Formats: sequence, structure tokens, C-alpha cells
Amino acid sequence: MPPTDAPATARLAARWADWFPVLRWGRDCTQATFTADLTSAAVVTLLLIPQALAYALLAGMPAVTGLYASVLPLVVYALMGTSPVVAAGPAALRSVMSLAAVGAVAATGSPAFIAASALLAVMVGAMLLVMGALRMGFVAGFLSHPVLSGFVTAAGLLIAMSQLPHVLGMPLASQNLGAFLRSLWQHHTQVHSLTLAVGLGAVATLWAARRWLQPGLRRLGTPAGAADLVSKAAPLLIMIGAIAITANTGWEARGLAVVGEIPQGLPALTLMAFTDTTPEMLRLLLLPALLIAVLTFVEQISMAQGMAAKRRERVDTDAEMRAMGGANLASGLSGAFAVGASFSRTVVVAESGARTPVAALLTAVLLGLAALFLTPWLRHLPLAVLAATILLALGSLMDFASFGRTWRFSRADFAAQALTFGTTLLVDLVSGLTAGVVASLALHIWHSSRPHIAEVGNVPGTEHYRNVRRHAVTTHPRILSLRVDGSLFFANARFLEDRIAAEVASHPDLRHLILLCNAVNDIDASALESLRTIQQRLSDAGVLLHLSEVKGPVMDRLERSDFLAHLSGGVFLTHHQAVAALSA
Amino acid sequence: MPPTDAPATARLAARWADWFPVLRWGRDCTQATFTADLTSAAVVTLLLIPQALAYALLAGMPAVTGLYASVLPLVVYALMGTSPVVAAGPAALRSVMSLAAVGAVAATGSPAFIAASALLAVMVGAMLLVMGALRMGFVAGFLSHPVLSGFVTAAGLLIAMSQLPHVLGMPLASQNLGAFLRSLWQHHTQVHSLTLAVGLGAVATLWAARRWLQPGLRRLGTPAGAADLVSKAAPLLIMIGAIAITANTGWEARGLAVVGEIPQGLPALTLMAFTDTTPEMLRLLLLPALLIAVLTFVEQISMAQGMAAKRRERVDTDAEMRAMGGANLASGLSGAFAVGASFSRTVVVAESGARTPVAALLTAVLLGLAALFLTPWLRHLPLAVLAATILLALGSLMDFASFGRTWRFSRADFAAQALTFGTTLLVDLVSGLTAGVVASLALHIWHSSRPHIAEVGNVPGTEHYRNVRRHAVTTHPRILSLRVDGSLFFANARFLEDRIAAEVASHPDLRHLILLCNAVNDIDASALESLRTIQQRLSDAGVLLHLSEVKGPVMDRLERSDFLAHLSGGVFLTHHQAVAALSA
Repeated sequence: MPPTDAPATARLAARWADWFPVLRWGRDCTQATFTADLTSAAVVTLLLIPQALAYALLAGMPAVTGLYASVLPLVVYALMGTSPVVAAGPAALRSVMSLAAVGAVAATGSPAFIAASALLAVMVGAMLLVMGALRMGFVAGFLSHPVLSGFVTAAGLLIAMSQLPHVLGMPLASQNLGAFLRSLWQHHTQVHSLTLAVGLGAVATLWAARRWLQPGLRRLGTPAGAADLVSKAAPLLIMIGAIAITANTGWEARGLAVVGEIPQGLPALTLMAFTDTTPEMLRLLLLPALLIAVLTFVEQISMAQGMAAKRRERVDTDAEMRAMGGANLASGLSGAFAVGASFSRTVVVAESGARTPVAALLTAVLLGLAALFLTPWLRHLPLAVLAATILLALGSLMDFASFGRTWRFSRADFAAQALTFGTTLLVDLVSGLTAGVVASLALHIWHSSRPHIAEVGNVPGTEHYRNVRRHAVTTHPRILSLRVDGSLFFANARFLEDRIAAEVASHPDLRHLILLCNAVNDIDASALESLRTIQQRLSDAGVLLHLSEVKGPVMDRLERSDFLAHLSGGVFLTHHQAVAALSA
Repeated sequence: MPPTDAPATARLAARWADWFPVLRWGRDCTQATFTADLTSAAVVTLLLIPQALAYALLAGMPAVTGLYASVLPLVVYALMGTSPVVAAGPAALRSVMSLAAVGAVAATGSPAFIAASALLAVMVGAMLLVMGALRMGFVAGFLSHPVLSGFVTAAGLLIAMSQLPHVLGMPLASQNLGAFLRSLWQHHTQVHSLTLAVGLGAVATLWAARRWLQPGLRRLGTPAGAADLVSKAAPLLIMIGAIAITANTGWEARGLAVVGEIPQGLPALTLMAFTDTTPEMLRLLLLPALLIAVLTFVEQISMAQGMAAKRRERVDTDAEMRAMGGANLASGLSGAFAVGASFSRTVVVAESGARTPVAALLTAVLLGLAALFLTPWLRHLPLAVLAATILLALGSLMDFASFGRTWRFSRADFAAQALTFGTTLLVDLVSGLTAGVVASLALHIWHSSRPHIAEVGNVPGTEHYRNVRRHAVTTHPRILSLRVDGSLFFANARFLEDRIAAEVASHPDLRHLILLCNAVNDIDASALESLRTIQQRLSDAGVLLHLSEVKGPVMDRLERSDFLAHLSGGVFLTHHQAVAALSA
């Protein structure tokens, strides 16, 4: 339908701008913002190239797909996202989850594995796009904080286990702790000493560079900016050094594993890879895709909001969800793997002075050039060096201290956290996260299943009613007043039945039961059925049911059923009116 | 450890009496209660024999196991239960769920199928015993009322589909609506006319007897009691008639399916049947067993409470759970199938004047005699007659009117109900119930994810604070007061972050944010993390965070963390004190 009048055009434009915020901020770009963005893009590229290669390895994918996963996703996020600093692209947690999920449907490294990894990214992208379009940001609520931190910490340990084989030069299983320890026991004599030397050397150099390079350069008189830039580029410089060494020594022939031959150029956007998709494969990838989608959104939105808060900016939750959906779709169609927001790169983007999402577009251009011209050099890069890069990045992922904090704060939350951590480490990533979500829901239902219900009595000389256990109040032997402190829904409806049955059994002279509903904010169909049941049982026992101080929304809802028409007692505006009328 | 002093003995006795309430009511039995109980037992037996045989057929088990499922479970429930009228034993819903679950691990009718059915009953029993011992009655809360009624209605339709083959004399699939319609289309020419005639004859006779027998006998001058008894015994009399006819005609030779040869006597309690159990079988039966256990408990407890309410008696939820666990364990060890509380028989037990659980013990004795001496006669019983008995009982199970009631009351509840109904009918029983539970949890989280948060201002001349949108109140440009109407937990913690970020972005002069917490009843670790995040972001934006009117339990909890120690603002006893101090 073409827009025929001005308001319709404006509405359409606004809707387009909701989906593509670039249409709003695009006109604010100037030469000054462009210079700032170009500087930032150069710094970020130096950090991104080694990370992209390493996280591809972590996902079990060819190293070059890490570059593919950085180009188009950056472009799509820049056009659809609302944060100028969130860095979309390869990220550790998503890569290891992708490996675990796709490893269940195809042999690692096979063409089918590569196609399934891309398919998983497309599924994650489609889910995020749909959830964003339906404004389903509430799904983030399913991942409670203790469950998330328990999961991420265990995932960090699993990532470390998955990279140790590359550093030790021996084959080790890493899907869970048991498999890792068993294979370590079986293969512990097979350490490849040259690989181990290169791996340890890389770890030590990276660690030393991170710790001493920047202050060292400053002490030698280098300007702060230059020292900072060099230390950020250190991982890339170390990789170049490693490539130079392996290219000029016989180490490859002596068994040092390297990245190997990779295709040059940019990937063609293609749907051909998905022709072998079977319904069984889609079914197996469904739950992992959903978990990755929710996890990606949760991480991304906390980064985006955290960054926006400092500038008193606003982030549009739904637009962020759609943007990351688009980024994953783009990654999958580039033949790469699931992507997300990288915490380390987001911090660097903000620190290096990016002003608009143009910085991300420029980063994508630089990465594209790297994919075009750098790939021939990558073949000599030792896997041990890439693995070292990943190991060094794990510290920021794991948070063991949070276990102690949660234990002190709440045993129930700790139980959910420990269950998530243990299941992730001992079974696998998907089971761990699922167990955590189920456990926090179950604990919530358990906790909600016993709302506080107090018998109240009149504070003499006033119209106030208070808990009989805490205050000196007067009650009437034929009237029982119960105050329900909470909304009534399926998890606690039966408790209310139970509690009222107990009260009626212990008050033999009872003729009137009044429910004081001033704290009931909502009521669902299960609670309504329970009220019906309660009223029926009270009638059988010769007791009338009354309600007092029912809130507007609850009253509206009750009026949509026939409950009030058949109520044995009355509905009173105030509790005092009820007691006065019934004791008369 | 032997009891060494009187109080310890008394405690031990009390604990035994908790598990076996018979130790409490046993001493109240007199000759008068015995006579009443014996009369009731005789009436119930007449109803139970045909039901037991029919529900065994429904579970895909040999008819005689229906009798086994009635003897020991009745005894165990009588000793461990707290309701004198709840009738434990075969029940329609559990039988069809048992068939669906066990059908997935063994071929219907095979020895492995019979063993797996008994194993399922043992698993259900063990789960109920453990949940009862751990006082986990809250699990009933997972089954919301709309989900339960959607499930039971769809299950009723599936039961009807499973019995039609016996009435039509043709093979039909019945695991879901699609399979049923497909096989009906394939086999619609194969109706066996003799079977159809017997089946329709049985349905018509049973329906006529239910509708006209009791009033007809009364009109002919029969005393009320006798008329009632004859009409209750009608299904049994019709079965006896059918047996007499098939035994004396050549109908079996003409292809009328009958119960066939069955072993005589009582089953030996045996664990031998479980020697072939594989871990894979246990894994496949785990979810169905859990769902059957929860469903059984929910149905049983509503019957027990409903019956107890009329007499102002109390039911012990945990004892009921353990009693039904014991009954299922007994049924499994007798080589039978999962049992529960039967609604129709419970009503008959109460109406026929049972006074104590001795009535159930006497029923068990009568059933045992039936199993010993009746079985030779059963071989001629046509399956079409048993199926007719089941079809006639379905009316009470299905509740189509509840869909309309739920639709009018709440669209969210209706969605959960319709999803459960549709999935049960179109996929299978276990998927349907699982989908319903997941949907009601998801809807609850969605609903809880946006708590009401109001900006409040001072009612001039008072110390009261009210919503700025509804009342004429005064506010301060540098102070923002937000009242949170609900407990804070993982599902809504992020919404709070979001909402506060929006408020801060739209109040450029803001210096102080006060959260009025008088309606916050609880707070979990996720909400605590969100408060930390909020405080960090507010600090970045130069705003201090204060709390006012924090309830005791929430304050206790916050004090167990270091949140209050690092709070940028203060904690105020009343909101007015906070505003007064900060605007000064």
C-alpha cells in the first residue's frame, strides 16, 4: 500500500527508522565524527583480527570464517543497532556453545559441520529477529543472575579444557570434565614438546605484554597514546612474529599444528550450504539456538545499557534484539558461525573515541581488506598461539567470587547457581543452562506457593485492621478476617484453599469469612477456580464468603466471570464496613 | 536407636502415626462403624469390578491386572491415607497415560510391556513417596487449572478414540487425532458388524440403565435403597449377561474379540519382572512418571479436600501424597499399572455410608475373592462391552464449557489452555501436559516481568506520597521518587534497570533517586545485582540512589550482602523523611 498522505508517510518513515536507526543518526555525521570513528576503527581492527581467528578455532570452524563473522555482522549491527559502541562479532561463549551444539549433529571440521554452524547462526538470527519484532525482551528474565554467572564460569573452564589440546599438542576430549580427565589420563604421555614450548611461549609473551608493555613503554618515554596502541596491537604483533618464525623454520614438518591452507577472498553470500538440512538437524539445533539467542541478548543488552548509562543515552531493547538477529543472519549467510557482543572489544570501541556506528562500518571495511589480502599469510599461524590468545581472555569470563556472595545472600539462589555450574561442567553446556533455567523457575514457584496470609482484627477505637499475632486487636467468634499479602495465581491458589480449610476446621462457630484483598494486585483463572472451590466448601460447612477492599483491576477481572453473581456473601468497599455489617 | 525415655517414645509413635494414620483412627472402630463399612464395601465392589477390568484394557494390560491394581493399593491407601472416602485404584486418565508412556518402550501386550507398566507404577509410587516425605506438595502448583482442564478434556477424546476400535471391531491408531483419522480413512471398510452390534448394544443398554433404571424401579414400587443398589450394579449385571451370551453362542468363533484365557489366583509380589529394566527405559519413563505423579496428586488432593470440607475435617497433604505413593508401589509390585483416586467411586464410597477406611480394606478382601474365583468366567467377556463401559464414563471427564469461561476471564490463561488441549490431541499426552506447564510458567514470567512502578509526589500538607498521574501532588526537580509495586526477582529485575534508565535519561536535572519499597515483599540475588548495576549507572550519571520504607525481611536480606555498605545514598525509615532530608 503506497503512502497517500503526509501523516502516513511520516508514520512509515518512523517505522523504518525504528528498524534502521541509521536513518536517524546518519544525518548527524560530520567530518569530525568521521575522523574519530576512523581512528577507533583502526585500533579495534588490531584487536579484532587475532580474536576473530581464535574464536573461529573455538567454534571448531576454519580460522578464516572468524574474519567472515566480523564483516557483514558489523555492517548489519551498525545499521540496525542503537548503541554506537557495542561491538558485534565473534565472542568466546557463543563460539564454544556453537561447537557443542553443532558437534552433536556433524563431525567437527567436516563440510557438514561448517554448514550446520552457519545454519545455527541463521536460526539464532531468525529467533532474535522474531523476538525483537514481537517485543519479547522479557525472555531475558528467564536467565537469573546466579544461573548466568554459574553458567559463564563453568563455560570458561570448558573453554580452557578445549584449548589445552592445542597448547599441549595432544588429543583431548572437552565436552565435559569427566571426558576431559579420562582422555588426559589416557593420553598424558603424548605431549608434543615443540607444541608445548610454542604454546607456553605464546602464553608467557601475551601475559607479559598485557602486564608490562604499556607501563614499560611509558617509562621509556613513549607518549601515552602510542604506548596504548602498541599494547593493544600486541596480540596481533605476536601472531605476526609466530607466523614469521614458523614460515622460516622446519617446525611444521616436526609436527607443529598450523592453521593451514585457506581460501582467499570474501565468501559469497549463499543459501546453497543449507540444501542438506534435515528436519532432524533443525530439531536438534532448536534448543541450543534458543539458548544462544537468549544468552546473546542478555549479554548484549547489559553491555549496551551499561555504556549508555554513562552518557545518559537510551537503548531501544527491541531494536537491539533485532540488530543482533540481523547480525547473526548475516554471519550465517556468510558461511560463518553465531556472533554476539564482545565485552573486551566494546570497551575498546568506547575508549578509542568512537562517536557513531560509522566506526563499526569502517572496521568492517578494514576486516574485509584483511580477509582479501591477509589470508595467504595465515596458513603458517600455529594453533598453539591462537589457543594461547583464548586462554588469556578467559580470566574476565569467570567469576568464582560470586558463589560466595550468592551463598551469603540466599541459599535458594545458590542452589540454582551451583546446579547450573555443576551440570554445565559435568554434563554439557546446553544441559547446564537448561537445568539452571528450570531450577530458578521451580524455586520461584516454590517460593510463591506460600503467600503470607494473616488473620486480622480491629485496632480498638479505629477502623484499622492488623495482624492478630502482632497487635492487640479484637475479633469476633463468628467472623474470620484473612488478609492475603500477594497476588493469587496458579502456584499459590491451592495453598489458599488449604489454609482456609484449616482455619474453618479450627473455628467451629464460624459463620462469615472475609478476605481482605487490598494487597491482591492480580488474579488468574486458577485462583478464580480456587475461590469457587473455597466458596463451595464454605457453603457445605455453612459459612458465607465475603470480599473487602478489592482493587480495581481485580474487580474488573472478577466481573468478567460469574463468580460475583454467585458469591454467597457480599463485596465491601472497606473491611470495617464488612465487619460492622456482619457483626450487626 | 531404641527409645529410652517416654517423650522419645511418644515422638516416635507420633511420627509413625503421621505415616500410618490407621494408628490414630484404628482405636475408634466399633461394631457400628464395621457394619456401615461392610455395606459400603459391598456397593463399591459391584462398581469397581467392571471399572477395574475396563481400565486395565485402557492401559493396554490384561484385564485381570485391573483386579490386582485394586487389592493391595486399596489396603495401602487405607493404612496410610487420611481420607476415609477417597477411593484408590484404577482410574481412566492414569491408565491411558500409562499406555502412552509404556507404548513408547515396548510392544503393547508383550511381556516387556506388562513389566514396563508395573515399573512405571513403581516409579510413580517412589516419586510420590519421596515428594510426600520431603513435603513437596507445592508441585501441585505447576498444574494451573486451565492447563489441567484442557489436558483432561483432550485426554477424554483420546480415550474415546482408543476404545472405538474395540466397539467397531477394526484396528485404529489412537496416539493422536492425526493418526486416528488416517487409520480410520484406511480401514473404514473393515468394520466388523457383529462386534459393532455388540458394542452399540452395550452402549445403549448401559446408557438406558444409567438414565432409566433407578427411577423406573422406584415407579414400580421398589424401595429407594434397593433401586439404587440395582442401578449401581447395572454395569456388572450387563457384563454378566454379555458373558452368558458369548459363552453360549458361536460369536467368538465368528470373530467377536473377548478377554480370553487369564491366570487364576492372586499375583505373587515380585521384583523378578524388573530384571530386564534398562537405563534407557528408565530415562524414557522418567518424564511420564513425573507427570503422572503430579497429576495423580492434584486430582486426589482436590477430591480429598472437597470431601473433607463437608464434614469440617482436615486432610494431611503430605500423608495423602505418601499414601498414593504407597498405593502405586503396591500396584507395581502386584504386576499391575499406575493407580490414582477415582472420582466416581469416591462419590459412591461417601454416599454409601462408609465411616472409616475399614470400608476400603473390606473392598480389597471382596476384590481379592473376585480375583480368586471370578477369573475363569471372565474369558468370555467381549472387549466391546468393556470399551462401552469406558465410553459411558467419559462424559464426566470432559469440560468443554471451561474454554468459554477461561476465554472471557483471561486471554493468557485461555492461550495456555488451548495450547495444552491442541498439543495433547494433535501430538500426544506427555507433550500436551509438558507444553501446558511450560506455557503457564512462561506466561507467568511474562506477566511478572513488568511490575507496576509509579512516580510518586507529596500530597500537599501531609506526609503521604501518591502516584503523580492520579493525584495533585508536588515533586522536586532534583529528586525522583519511584514506588515499586511488587517483589523484585529475576523475571522483573532487568525491567527495573530499564525503567530507571529511561527515567534518568528524561530528567536532566536529577541528583537523587529514591526507591519507595513499602510494597516490595521479597528480593532475590538477580534483583540485588540489578540494584548494584542501577547504583553503578546512577553514579556514572552523577545521581545518588536512596531507599525508603524497606520492609523487615528485605532489609535482613540486604544486610547479608555488601550492598548497603556501598550504597551511594541513604536508607530512610519513611519516604517523607527522605524527601525532607534531600530537598533541604
